[in-house]
Amino acid sequence: MDYKAPEQDAKFLLFDLFRVQDIWSEIPALSDFSEDLTQAIVAEGARLTSEVIAPTNQIGDEEGAHWEDGVVTTPAVFKNAYQEVAQGGWLGIAGNPDFGGQGMPKMLACLVEEMLWASNSSLYLYGTLTVGSTLAIDTHGTPEQKQTYLPKMYSGEWAGAMALTESHAGTDLGIMRSRAEPQANGSYSITGTKIFITGGEHDLVENIIHLVLAKLPDAPPGTKGISLFIVPKFLVDEDGSLGERNGWASGSIEHKMGIRASATNVINYDGATGYLLGEENQGLAAMFTMMNYERLSVGLQGLGSGDLAYQQAAAYAKDRLQGRASTGAQNPDGPADSLLVHPDVRRMLLSQRAYNEGGRAFALFVGLQLDLAKFNGDKDAGRLSELLTPIAKAYLSDKGFEGAVNAQQVFGGHGYIKEWGVEQIVRDARIAQIYEGTNGVQAADLLGRKVMRDNGATLRQFVDMMAQSEVAEEFQPALNEALDRLIRVTSSVIERSAEDPNLIGAVSTDYLELTGLTMFAWLWARMAAIAPDDEFGQAKKVTARFFFDRLLPKAEGLEAGLVADSASVMSMLDDSF
Amino acid sequence: MDYKAPEQDAKFLLFDLFRVQDIWSEIPALSDFSEDLTQAIVAEGARLTSEVIAPTNQIGDEEGAHWEDGVVTTPAVFKNAYQEVAQGGWLGIAGNPDFGGQGMPKMLACLVEEMLWASNSSLYLYGTLTVGSTLAIDTHGTPEQKQTYLPKMYSGEWAGAMALTESHAGTDLGIMRSRAEPQANGSYSITGTKIFITGGEHDLVENIIHLVLAKLPDAPPGTKGISLFIVPKFLVDEDGSLGERNGWASGSIEHKMGIRASATNVINYDGATGYLLGEENQGLAAMFTMMNYERLSVGLQGLGSGDLAYQQAAAYAKDRLQGRASTGAQNPDGPADSLLVHPDVRRMLLSQRAYNEGGRAFALFVGLQLDLAKFNGDKDAGRLSELLTPIAKAYLSDKGFEGAVNAQQVFGGHGYIKEWGVEQIVRDARIAQIYEGTNGVQAADLLGRKVMRDNGATLRQFVDMMAQSEVAEEFQPALNEALDRLIRVTSSVIERSAEDPNLIGAVSTDYLELTGLTMFAWLWARMAAIAPDDEFGQAKKVTARFFFDRLLPKAEGLEAGLVADSASVMSMLDDSF
Repeated sequence: MDYKAPEQDAKFLLFDLFRVQDIWSEIPALSDFSEDLTQAIVAEGARLTSEVIAPTNQIGDEEGAHWEDGVVTTPAVFKNAYQEVAQGGWLGIAGNPDFGGQGMPKMLACLVEEMLWASNSSLYLYGTLTVGSTLAIDTHGTPEQKQTYLPKMYSGEWAGAMALTESHAGTDLGIMRSRAEPQANGSYSITGTKIFITGGEHDLVENIIHLVLAKLPDAPPGTKGISLFIVPKFLVDEDGSLGERNGWASGSIEHKMGIRASATNVINYDGATGYLLGEENQGLAAMFTMMNYERLSVGLQGLGSGDLAYQQAAAYAKDRLQGRASTGAQNPDGPADSLLVHPDVRRMLLSQRAYNEGGRAFALFVGLQLDLAKFNGDKDAGRLSELLTPIAKAYLSDKGFEGAVNAQQVFGGHGYIKEWGVEQIVRDARIAQIYEGTNGVQAADLLGRKVMRDNGATLRQFVDMMAQSEVAEEFQPALNEALDRLIRVTSSVIERSAEDPNLIGAVSTDYLELTGLTMFAWLWARMAAIAPDDEFGQAKKVTARFFFDRLLPKAEGLEAGLVADSASVMSMLDDSF
Repeated sequence: MDYKAPEQDAKFLLFDLFRVQDIWSEIPALSDFSEDLTQAIVAEGARLTSEVIAPTNQIGDEEGAHWEDGVVTTPAVFKNAYQEVAQGGWLGIAGNPDFGGQGMPKMLACLVEEMLWASNSSLYLYGTLTVGSTLAIDTHGTPEQKQTYLPKMYSGEWAGAMALTESHAGTDLGIMRSRAEPQANGSYSITGTKIFITGGEHDLVENIIHLVLAKLPDAPPGTKGISLFIVPKFLVDEDGSLGERNGWASGSIEHKMGIRASATNVINYDGATGYLLGEENQGLAAMFTMMNYERLSVGLQGLGSGDLAYQQAAAYAKDRLQGRASTGAQNPDGPADSLLVHPDVRRMLLSQRAYNEGGRAFALFVGLQLDLAKFNGDKDAGRLSELLTPIAKAYLSDKGFEGAVNAQQVFGGHGYIKEWGVEQIVRDARIAQIYEGTNGVQAADLLGRKVMRDNGATLRQFVDMMAQSEVAEEFQPALNEALDRLIRVTSSVIERSAEDPNLIGAVSTDYLELTGLTMFAWLWARMAAIAPDDEFGQAKKVTARFFFDRLLPKAEGLEAGLVADSASVMSMLDDSF
């Protein structure tokens, strides 16, 4: 499948919308990232993903990953593609410069990640788990651990994986059974079986560093008794060379709906050697360092899938001749007009675009908050990024899947057969709504934790900030209404939840959708205000208008549904289901 | 996958909601269908689909259909299952009794079809094309054609297929190229290549009767120059025995996202012998006899997939222990509570149920109109069935897919792997939104043809009828509001479309969703009014409340979006897509 990275939009968002040139120049660690350098990085990422990686996407799906006697084989075309990603330094772009990382701003990393996801989700899964693992090691590791693992992982010579889930313990990690026995030499002996371990075993690298959650013998019950361990495939000798094979093996890989070239392993730990990462019994918090990174990344996966799907559908709609415009033939010399004359086809394409471009702006805005928190110690930005992360994960992955389904619909029957590739995007995109905490879990996190923990204060502060932004005049009234609605609904839910403890859970998914719509409306109103007067800018303005005309109005229906209490959700007898 | 046919709901809908005992007893052709006989038929259909067919569903997906040198092989388990469907007479249930059909009311056939779809969509595709073909032959055939084909097709000894699409001509059939040359003996020589021919070639029966659209040499251009032909795989001798192989062959089958055990053929007609069905150049109208049948049937496919998915998700949610209720442990002796304690899980299950049970009631209501039109010559009912058919096709298939996706979400990661089967339902359900006219085509048919052709008169008449129904008091105000909204939006769109010719196309999909929601609201309000005071009835009432609390409010958002004109949809430059 052809893929063209969104270079022009990236430039618009970074330099026109968010004006990073003014922000980064004030931050010593980022002042090297000039406009020229940034654009060169984006251009090189665009070249790599469009020319090298995208051509491996469909082949990878057809070939899939294979398991035999504990050995996992990835598609043949993946070897070179992964090497190019690794050797280009793309897995260390946001990494710690003290250990070989490139220390790029998260905003830039977000753009690169989107391209990597879009061009081949299965392939980049091996990368993103590596990146997430380095983040956990960098944040919680000892200086020796960082020195041992980070340089080799940033360079892509070694990969990472996270081992959380057990067959009976998915969302509910507190009931996991994997054990860690302290050994005399300070290491731990890890025993248990983990499932759904993305990239737990594969043939792309020489060593794979697992981060494994397990319980110490005297651990308190539940989530407060979970510790995190570094459990490499090959133990690392003191000189950094690879030693003996550790005591774990892949028991099988899953047969999945999509991301078929990503190996999802069952891993059996049989007294494997592990090293404590961070503090005892603080494993879940340490793992969340990685999870939060992964959650934004999975949102970018949804966005990448959505953009890849849009590009296929737009190209098909331009080429495919079928039917005539209701206002008279537009291509009178041809046998029929292009699909683009049909308003319903345009509606599908514009919906995809509005969510994709809105989603890209949203992801970069979250990235900006992460940068301000990390490099400026800005606590408000840190809290805001925590509020926005579940929205980025769930709303972008929901809209990515919806967009892929819409793109498939534009293709008609040709979208359902493998040949055109768009059905693969639908299958691949679906996982982003499920893993790294299902989107229901994200919604519960948003409303039940992030909004409730300060009674909506962070949200209100953000709404104030949105209300004071400079936006396109024509959208100001609708935006104001949307912001008022979000405040009104938030206040109402907080108030009513005191008497109705199931309310939060009953409304959280619709609430998340309302926040997503509202924040996208703000971004579209801002983008429309600064869009240039060229073709690119005109398209932005039309898409903004479409968003306000046709997508934002859904918020009215969401509010109307959020008025209900939890009774109708809770009163069905269990046996009646 | 386990499947339990909805016997109790069928009884409730037929005898309590629609009171068919009062209707059928007044229609001579249907007066034999007593309550006892009807329940026995439903029970036997339930047994067949639950015990014989459902166990072939996952195996069929794994094995798929295979093509080699023009020979198409279906999964081994399909042979016996198809024989049981055929020998049980299930393909002739609604057929003409003069030629061996059983003349059942359409309402009853709808229930049976839903079960057949639910238990194995791939398998029933071979059946539904056969049923649709018999309907076209019965309506348009000569007495000799009926005698030659119908008995063998009703009995399932021969199958049917419809050959419309060409690679460049999908929705736009007017540009097809297949030719029919008249022969001296009154037959025609058919030449051309058709794609997407479901069941065009397979190994389940001894003969396959194609209905093929092609153009006569002197045909007028476009859709007015298309004729329909009967083109059997084996020519039939005068004594009814099979003669020589006809001049067509399967060139290949498609590799598809789902319904993998249904063979989707490319068929090459190379001077094949065809017999005109109906009048010259009237082929499209004749084909639409079949298409309209198929469209309701595809709606039932969506419903069947939705119910199958719901059943998997509900069973999983009851069994799977994960997390604790926010109001305190419900299963304190177990490691965790069941998923059912989580409001968001219940929300997903209740949404599925509300759309499934609403959809079943809606499909039966359409079936009732078809029965009244066919057996009583009721023209109002006929017009109403035409208005409702695109809604049945699109809304039920949209909600079936959405429900399957929701069911998959309830499973979390386990929903994405093949083992549990629910990902197959998602892949299978997706096609129902695409084939037999995409759901965008259905929306254009609903608003652009069925509503516009009488300026909304049939719709208004139906809204009046809904407003006068006896419904549960608690839902009367919300229902009235919904009915007013539908009238308001319809009037507004009709009025504005005079000045804005692209408006119909720009809003048709949202308009179809609004009609579906409104009509489901009416059915839920009626069902709640008559639901008995037992567990079944309580569940109905709770689901009705959930529908009014949480699903119907979406209509407010739809109306708000339908206010817009077509400008934002149409003003993007083609090159900017």
